Amino acid sequence: MSNALLGRLRADLGADAVVTDPDVMASYARDQMPLAPAGRPLAVVLPDDVEGVRAAVRACAEATVPIVPRGAGSGLSGAANAVDGCVVLVMTKLDRIVEIDPADRLAVVQPGVVNQALRDAVAKHGLFYPPDPSSYDWCTVGGNLATNAGGLCCVKYGVTADFVLGLEVVLADGSVLRTGRRTVKGVAGYDLTRLFVGSEGTLGVITEATLALRPLPQAPATLVAAFPSAVSAGTAVSRIVRDGLVPSLMEVMDATTIRAVQDYLHTDLGTGSDSGTLLLCQSDTGGAQAIAELEAVERICADAGAEMTYQTGDPAEGDLLMKARRVAHSALESTGSCMTDDVCVPRTRIADLITGCERIADDTGLTVAVVGHAGDGNMHPTVVYDATADGEFDRARRAFDAILDLGLSLGGTITGEHGVGKFKQDWLAREIGPVGLDVHRRLKRALDPDNLFNPGSMFSM
Amino acid sequence: MSNALLGRLRADLGADAVVTDPDVMASYARDQMPLAPAGRPLAVVLPDDVEGVRAAVRACAEATVPIVPRGAGSGLSGAANAVDGCVVLVMTKLDRIVEIDPADRLAVVQPGVVNQALRDAVAKHGLFYPPDPSSYDWCTVGGNLATNAGGLCCVKYGVTADFVLGLEVVLADGSVLRTGRRTVKGVAGYDLTRLFVGSEGTLGVITEATLALRPLPQAPATLVAAFPSAVSAGTAVSRIVRDGLVPSLMEVMDATTIRAVQDYLHTDLGTGSDSGTLLLCQSDTGGAQAIAELEAVERICADAGAEMTYQTGDPAEGDLLMKARRVAHSALESTGSCMTDDVCVPRTRIADLITGCERIADDTGLTVAVVGHAGDGNMHPTVVYDATADGEFDRARRAFDAILDLGLSLGGTITGEHGVGKFKQDWLAREIGPVGLDVHRRLKRALDPDNLFNPGSMFSM
Repeated sequence: MSNALLGRLRADLGADAVVTDPDVMASYARDQMPLAPAGRPLAVVLPDDVEGVRAAVRACAEATVPIVPRGAGSGLSGAANAVDGCVVLVMTKLDRIVEIDPADRLAVVQPGVVNQALRDAVAKHGLFYPPDPSSYDWCTVGGNLATNAGGLCCVKYGVTADFVLGLEVVLADGSVLRTGRRTVKGVAGYDLTRLFVGSEGTLGVITEATLALRPLPQAPATLVAAFPSAVSAGTAVSRIVRDGLVPSLMEVMDATTIRAVQDYLHTDLGTGSDSGTLLLCQSDTGGAQAIAELEAVERICADAGAEMTYQTGDPAEGDLLMKARRVAHSALESTGSCMTDDVCVPRTRIADLITGCERIADDTGLTVAVVGHAGDGNMHPTVVYDATADGEFDRARRAFDAILDLGLSLGGTITGEHGVGKFKQDWLAREIGPVGLDVHRRLKRALDPDNLFNPGSMFSM
Repeated sequence: MSNALLGRLRADLGADAVVTDPDVMASYARDQMPLAPAGRPLAVVLPDDVEGVRAAVRACAEATVPIVPRGAGSGLSGAANAVDGCVVLVMTKLDRIVEIDPADRLAVVQPGVVNQALRDAVAKHGLFYPPDPSSYDWCTVGGNLATNAGGLCCVKYGVTADFVLGLEVVLADGSVLRTGRRTVKGVAGYDLTRLFVGSEGTLGVITEATLALRPLPQAPATLVAAFPSAVSAGTAVSRIVRDGLVPSLMEVMDATTIRAVQDYLHTDLGTGSDSGTLLLCQSDTGGAQAIAELEAVERICADAGAEMTYQTGDPAEGDLLMKARRVAHSALESTGSCMTDDVCVPRTRIADLITGCERIADDTGLTVAVVGHAGDGNMHPTVVYDATADGEFDRARRAFDAILDLGLSLGGTITGEHGVGKFKQDWLAREIGPVGLDVHRRLKRALDPDNLFNPGSMFSM
């Protein structure tokens, strides 16, 4: 049976498009979430056009062999991890930028286009594609769509979904669905575009996307503010939001992260006290407006108790200041193994999340460092542990779960931007409840009755 | 059977909540789209809480009597029109603003809250709920959600869907689904919120919504520009969009509309030529920034060939200038019966739409006047005809359809903000094609297997 399928795939897509070498397959069997399970694929298939995708979908559907679609594999939820006996459908060869329309400010792209390649291509037309997950230099737009990826841009520009005008999707029966439109407004029918964005490859395979673009922003001005405590930093964030100030970036680092970064860079970040919290803001509105924007933020920070604020309009200096945030994950990884969480809380509860994480660190005797997108409440508390020490992995996992629990108790969600995948299924069930889960299953059954696409991911049928 | 249902509804919801008087029922049987068919309901039911909604849904489901949910009835697609023998479920008594949270900038409201009542209530906290359909002083938030209503605000702030964080929905089996969250970001599961927003009452009954708010904007500064032709006005709009300028309002009126308004107001709008086109812009950023914003728009208008531009920072004077746009529909209605279209085209095709409508007017010998939201390409060409003249209704209907056809041929959609309802089902099928229609039917069947909610609206099963 599986031999017949491999033969058909080779006949339909070409022999080069079908990989069964175990070592190569292993390299396609996982994304970047080490805690999620991954199975052994039957084959890895790399189509290079929509007809290839259709042929693979039809062949797998007839053979009842599951399909796990994936892009570059930069995901952080195991959504792209293989299941035993599946076909991993790798979309990286559909990597064409089909069209850039500067007048209507949109681009039409295939899913295998790397996020940065799209950014670079549209920048030549003075345009900007904002979604910027931290893997932007190697993740693909298709993966960004499947996970509704976020990034640093979200505080001002929103998430991937906010830039999707329309999609082309291959459905489980091999038919091709076109959703959305090229206009900025439209209410003809259900919002199918939004149903597929963030569905983590469980409903169909995205083969093309029409994306909205914006004018290229100005080089950023940067502000750093050091607070004596998470509470005072949290107060500043709440006031900045409440006053309607919209920096193009607003990141927070807690005392534990600051210590790790200082050790890693052999430098003093100037936070003054041991319980210091750093807030990093940028404005990309340019010139006097950027300065005015950051001065307003600076005033709020000072009012909220900041012990130090520093502002610069020089992009190179701003880049240096941002380095502390950029190396945060590497700094933490240099001290042990890491489990990075992805809770999102109402922006008024950021301080509660940070102090709650300190409690969890005390309770488990582990390091828990919080960095995150303060502007939208999307926090990445990271549990640092010694993978070689007996029982420490289990304790880390308990801390990780306690953070999810804390996020929910603060009115938040279990995932702000990484997704559910093959790791947080139980937590999804808890967040959305039995009616929500039942609706998910009904929608999945409606579009993929034989559970062909990414079975067991996000939720079980 | 129907007597048994009425008895059960009265027992469960109270006798006052169940109306069967034919005259009263007739007043609830239609929205504001005269061309859509409307049936005779079995009863009109007015629950005042979610338990009442659940009881009505369960009773109707068991009796296999269809439910047509509605708010104030300000819709323009017949989506809220009764079908024969249905229960019209009127949501206006669920009219409580449950919560306003200024710190996290959100409100929790029941669907019967009038749009303006919400705007007024949040304004007391210095906050702003942007969606502003032209019926804002009497339409309800529930109807806005069901139709994903737009308005003048969309060019800067987006549509209703962009402000919905979460929903409570009663499903066809009477269960209560909660979608979304209170955080600004989140990817836990499918985007069920967006599936219900704009579904025109075909998938469930919205009983509560969590809505994002923004800080209250400044009083607007206003700019009027008169162009010698639709083409020069269209060029200006394209450049304004391309340069990334975002006025808080950008409306266009063609020569036919201008003539009607001049006659109606007995005034000269100063457009100079017979083929003149007016562009009206506002900025709500306040002070120097608003002036700078409108000056940039003004320069583009002058470059594109505007014969007259006039700017004012005085809100009262701005209001006077806006009067021409506000009375446009009344001015046209004073000259005959009106069919108002709702196509949305890419913003670069606005001039093509206006000149195409002139052609359609010539071909049919009728008046076609174009006003619309230039900032997002959502145009409202209005066919004016003599309802008493033999055959003129049919000719008007042909002109109306020709405009939809034109909109599609320009890469647009058949409805930018009014919806499909019981009037544009055939056009929806044409726009989304057989695969799109099949997906709509599958989703409808998944959530409403017995076709309980608003059957025959949007599409037939």
